[in-house]
Amino acid sequence: MPEYKAPVRDMKFVMQELLDCDSHYQKLGYEDASLDMVNAIVSEAAKLTEQVIAPINQTGDEQGCTWTDGEVTTPDGFKDAYQQYVEGGWPTLAQSVDFGGQGLPHSLNMAINEFFSGANHSFAMYPGLSHGALATIEEHGSDIQKNTFMPKLVDGTWTGTMCLTEPHCGTDLGMLRTKAELNDDGSYAISGTKIFISAGDHDLSDNIVHIVIARIPGSPEGSRGISLFIVPKFNVTEAGDVADRNAVSCGSIEHKMGINANATCVINFDGAKGYLIGEINRGLNCMFTFMNAARLGVASEGVAAADASFQGALAYAQDRLQMRSLTGVKNPDGPADPIIVHPDVRRMLLTQKSIAEGGRALIGYLAQLVDIGHASKDEAEKATAESKLALLTPIAKAFLTEAGLECTNHGIQIFGGHGFIKEWGMEQLMRDTRISCLYEGTTGIQALDLLARKVLGSKGEILKPFGADVTAFCVENLTDEAMQEFIKPIMAYSADWQKMTESIGMKAMKNPDEIGGASVDYLMYSGYLVLAYFWAKMAKVAQDKLAASDDDKAFYQAKIKTARFYFQRILPRASGHAACLANGTESMMELDSEDFIF
Amino acid sequence: MPEYKAPVRDMKFVMQELLDCDSHYQKLGYEDASLDMVNAIVSEAAKLTEQVIAPINQTGDEQGCTWTDGEVTTPDGFKDAYQQYVEGGWPTLAQSVDFGGQGLPHSLNMAINEFFSGANHSFAMYPGLSHGALATIEEHGSDIQKNTFMPKLVDGTWTGTMCLTEPHCGTDLGMLRTKAELNDDGSYAISGTKIFISAGDHDLSDNIVHIVIARIPGSPEGSRGISLFIVPKFNVTEAGDVADRNAVSCGSIEHKMGINANATCVINFDGAKGYLIGEINRGLNCMFTFMNAARLGVASEGVAAADASFQGALAYAQDRLQMRSLTGVKNPDGPADPIIVHPDVRRMLLTQKSIAEGGRALIGYLAQLVDIGHASKDEAEKATAESKLALLTPIAKAFLTEAGLECTNHGIQIFGGHGFIKEWGMEQLMRDTRISCLYEGTTGIQALDLLARKVLGSKGEILKPFGADVTAFCVENLTDEAMQEFIKPIMAYSADWQKMTESIGMKAMKNPDEIGGASVDYLMYSGYLVLAYFWAKMAKVAQDKLAASDDDKAFYQAKIKTARFYFQRILPRASGHAACLANGTESMMELDSEDFIF
Repeated sequence: MPEYKAPVRDMKFVMQELLDCDSHYQKLGYEDASLDMVNAIVSEAAKLTEQVIAPINQTGDEQGCTWTDGEVTTPDGFKDAYQQYVEGGWPTLAQSVDFGGQGLPHSLNMAINEFFSGANHSFAMYPGLSHGALATIEEHGSDIQKNTFMPKLVDGTWTGTMCLTEPHCGTDLGMLRTKAELNDDGSYAISGTKIFISAGDHDLSDNIVHIVIARIPGSPEGSRGISLFIVPKFNVTEAGDVADRNAVSCGSIEHKMGINANATCVINFDGAKGYLIGEINRGLNCMFTFMNAARLGVASEGVAAADASFQGALAYAQDRLQMRSLTGVKNPDGPADPIIVHPDVRRMLLTQKSIAEGGRALIGYLAQLVDIGHASKDEAEKATAESKLALLTPIAKAFLTEAGLECTNHGIQIFGGHGFIKEWGMEQLMRDTRISCLYEGTTGIQALDLLARKVLGSKGEILKPFGADVTAFCVENLTDEAMQEFIKPIMAYSADWQKMTESIGMKAMKNPDEIGGASVDYLMYSGYLVLAYFWAKMAKVAQDKLAASDDDKAFYQAKIKTARFYFQRILPRASGHAACLANGTESMMELDSEDFIF
Repeated sequence: MPEYKAPVRDMKFVMQELLDCDSHYQKLGYEDASLDMVNAIVSEAAKLTEQVIAPINQTGDEQGCTWTDGEVTTPDGFKDAYQQYVEGGWPTLAQSVDFGGQGLPHSLNMAINEFFSGANHSFAMYPGLSHGALATIEEHGSDIQKNTFMPKLVDGTWTGTMCLTEPHCGTDLGMLRTKAELNDDGSYAISGTKIFISAGDHDLSDNIVHIVIARIPGSPEGSRGISLFIVPKFNVTEAGDVADRNAVSCGSIEHKMGINANATCVINFDGAKGYLIGEINRGLNCMFTFMNAARLGVASEGVAAADASFQGALAYAQDRLQMRSLTGVKNPDGPADPIIVHPDVRRMLLTQKSIAEGGRALIGYLAQLVDIGHASKDEAEKATAESKLALLTPIAKAFLTEAGLECTNHGIQIFGGHGFIKEWGMEQLMRDTRISCLYEGTTGIQALDLLARKVLGSKGEILKPFGADVTAFCVENLTDEAMQEFIKPIMAYSADWQKMTESIGMKAMKNPDEIGGASVDYLMYSGYLVLAYFWAKMAKVAQDKLAASDDDKAFYQAKIKTARFYFQRILPRASGHAACLANGTESMMELDSEDFIF
C-alpha cells in the first residue's frame, strides 16, 4: 500500500503564497484564522491523517461494511478512528460558534478534507455527508430544529445523510414517490424507499439525521412538488437527547466497485416521523444550498485521488529498476535504471502531479469564494464570488473527478502488472475514485449545468467576472518575458473558448440537442483552460519567490517546470475536444434507437 | 448482469462482406473453411458462449479462484464449462491436423475467441494461454517434443502457460534469475520463481505444460542468455501419458482488481525437469513467435470488452426513463423519456459501438494476415503480410485495449450510480479489461515497439505496405461523392502522420528520449487513423450493398451512420494527441527525480 503523506508543503503554497489566505481571512473577519493557527491546524490534520486515517484504508476495503439484522457495522478501526476525529474537535472546525463550532473558515476545512479523502476516501465520506445535512438545517431549518439537531451534528456525536435517490429516479428527482403525510402533531409521516444513501447506516455515531426529499399528497407533479424533511434514525427529545427508534431502517447495503468501507444503503421509511424544513414544495431549492458545497467536496476527492496515486507511483518509479535509459546508463551500479528515467513514465507522473497540484489550486480558490459567500459584508463582492462559484463548480466537479480517475489509472500503469494486484493499493484508488464521476450529479449532468443552465442560460454573462480576472492577469504579465510561454496559450485558448461558446449558442437556437452533444467536450475544454490559468498564476508566484530569495529554490523551480509540462503536454488536449465539438451533434442523433445493434 | 449476445451478424459482416473470407480461405488452401462451415462454426460458438460461458461470468468474479494446499480450484461451473468446450472440439479448431487439430484458419479461431472473451474474460484466458504454449512447441520444438506434448494440448486435455515474469523483472527479461542446469539425461533442472502466471494452476485439465524462460549457467548476461524450456506440472511418459508430479508448485495466487476467475499464480520451480526448446540462448527469439499472436489476442479482448459493455449500456439506455429530451417529449406515455434520447448518452454509446465494430474489423484484417503468414506459398505475399502485421500489432494491442477500457468506463457512466454496483455487471467489465493494457507488454512498451523498433528502426520502410493500401483506397474513392466525408479526413490525417513521423525521427537523432516522450501519443494517433481507414472501408461496403439491393437496409445504414459518428466525433481526438506530441519531450525531462515531491 502506498504510504500516504499529507501534501502539507504544497497546501501551504496554495493557501498562503498563491491565495494569500492571511489577508483573505482577516478581511472577512475570521480573526482566529491567523497564519499560526492555519499552520497548526494543517499540521495536526496531517498527523491525524497519516497516523490514524490512512492505516485503515486498505483493510477497510478488504473487509468492507457488513449488514446484519438491519444494522451496519463498519470495518475494524473505523469506529476508533472516528472517535479520535471527534475528540480532536475536527467536525466542529468550520461550524457556527452558536452551535458549538469553532467558526473557522470553510476554506480551511476544505483544505484538510483533501488530506482525509486522499488517505481514505470511504472514511472521509462519513463526516462529509454530515456536512451537507448540517448546512441544510442551518440554512433552512427553524430555530427549534437548529437547536435540536445542530449541536450534536456539529460535535460529531451524530452524523447526517442526504436521502434523494429512489430506485426509479436519480437525476430526475421530479419522479420521486416517497410520501410525506401530515400528522396531528404537525410532524409528517414519511413512507418510501431511498437507495444509494452513503453513510446511510453505520456504527460510528449515536444517531443519524437523514435529510429526505418527499412529496406531500396534493403537491404538484414533478420537481415543483418536492418538500424537504429531517428524519432522524432515533427520535429526539426536546432537550436534544436520543429517544426511541424512528420507523427508519436499512434494508440492505450495496456491493460496489469501490468505497467498500462506506455503507451505501437502501433506507426504508415506514411512516417515519419527519419534520418539514423550509417551505412546502420548495425542497429542491433548499437542496441547491448544500449541492454546490457537496460538488466542491467531490471535486476535491478527484484531486485527493490523483495525489495519492501520484505519491504511490512516484515512490515505485524511483525504486523499481527496469531497462536502461535511451540516452545512456543512469544507474551504473544497478542492474538497470529506475523507471523514472523513462520519458513515458515521467509523462504519466507529471500528468498526475500537474492535475493534483493544479486541482488543489482551483479548489483552494473556490473554497475562498465560499468563504466570501458566507462571511463577506460587501454585497457586490458576494455576488461576484457567487457568480464565479456557479461557473466554476461544475467545471471543478466534473473535470477534476474525470482527471482524478485518469490519474489513478496512470498510477496502476506505472506499476505495470503490480498495479493490478490489490496488495499494492493502486487499484483501490481507481476503484474508489470511480464513484466521484457519478455521485452528486454525473459528469454529463455537470456539463449540462455548465453549458445549458449557466453559460447559455445567462447568455454568457456568467463568464464575465471570472473572464475579467483571466484577462487582467494576462494583461498584467504581457510584457514579462518569462511569462510568455504561459500567457500566450491562455489568450489563444480563451479566444477560442469564446468563439466556441458563441458558435454553440447559435447552433442551439436551431436545435437544443446541440447543447447536450457539445456539453462534455465543452466542459473538458473549460477544465483544461481553467487549470492552465491557475498553473500560470502558480508559475508567476514561483518566479517572484525565486527572484526574491534563495529559499526553497528547488520547490519553486519544480513549480515552474510542472507548469511548463502542463502547458506543453496537457493543455493541448483541449484542441482535441474543440475539434470533436466543432462537428456538432448531427452524427449522434441520426441513428434510431432500435438500430444500434442487429 | 448484462445478457451477452455474441455479435454474430456483425462478425459475418466483417469476415464475409468486408474481408471476403471465402476467397481468402480458398486461396490459401483452407478447403474446409467454406462459407457454410464458417457460418455453422460461428453460430455454434455463439450458442456455447451464450448458454455456457456467459452465465458463469459474474459468479466467477464473485467466487474467484481459491488456493488450498498448493492447489488452485476454479469457481463453480468452470470445470464443467471447460469440459463442454473440450468436448465440442473447440481447442482443436485451428490446430494442425498432424496432432489432432481440425486445421481450420486462425482467423476463424480469432473471431470466435472474441465471443468467449466478451462473455467471460477469465474463462477465455485458460484456452488462450494454451494457444501460446502450443504455438511455441509447434514452431520450435523437436519432433519428440511435438509428439509428446502437442496432441493433448491440441485436444484440450492439457493446458499450457507462458512463464516469463519474475518478481524483479517484467519488461526487462534480461534480468531473469531462474536457472536451468543440465541433467545427465539431457533434460534440465529448472529452479526459480515466476510470478503473474495466468492459468498457472487450476483444476480444469489433467496436466499443465509450462513454457519457461531461464538462464543456463555460463550464458551471456542480459537478453542474449535466455533459453526456453518445456516444464510440465506432471512428468510425461514417452507414450504421452501423465506420470509422477514434477517439482513445480503453485506458491500462491494473487488478489487482483479483476479477472478473479483466472488464477494468477506464483509458480515455484525447485529443480523441476525441463526440456530445452530451440537453441540455447535463443529463447527470446523463440518467444517472439507466440508474442505477436498473444498480443493480437489481447487486442481482441479490448474489442470484446467494449462490445459487452455496449450491449449492457444500450439495453439500459433504451429502458431507463429519466428526464425529457431537450427537443421535446419523446415518450409521451411514460413519466420520462428513455435516456437514449439524450445526446451525451448517445455520444457514449456510439463511442462504444464505433470502437467495438471498428476494432472488430481491424482484428479481422490482422487475423487474415496471420493466416497468410501461416499458409501462403507466395513468399512475397507472406513478407508483405508480416510487415503489415508487425506494424499494426502494437497499434491494435495498445490502442484497442486503451479504447476498450474507456468504453467499459462509459458503460458504467451510462448506468449512473447503478454502474458502480456489482449486481449490474458493468463495473466487472472495467475491472477485468484493465489487465489488457498491462499484460503481454504495457501500452508504453507497445508504443516503443511501434515507434522505436519498427517505424524509426526501419527508417519508415515498415509504413509503406500498409500505407500503400490506404493510399490506393483513397485514390479509388476520390471521385465518389458519398465517400468524400471519409476519404478527405483520412488523407489529411495521413499526411500529418507522415510529417509527424519525420519530425520525431529528426528530433530523435539529437535526443533519443524524444522517442519515448512521443511514443504513446504517436500510437494513439496511429490507432485513431487506422480505425478511420477500416470505418471508411466498412462505409464503402455498406454503400455498395445499399445500392445493390434492399436487403438489410437498416443494418447498412447504421454502418454508414456509425462511420460518420466516428469521423466526426472520435477521429478528431487525434489532433489533441498531435498537439501534445508536437511540443516534444523537454518539459518531461527537466525535473530531477528527487524534486517531484516536497
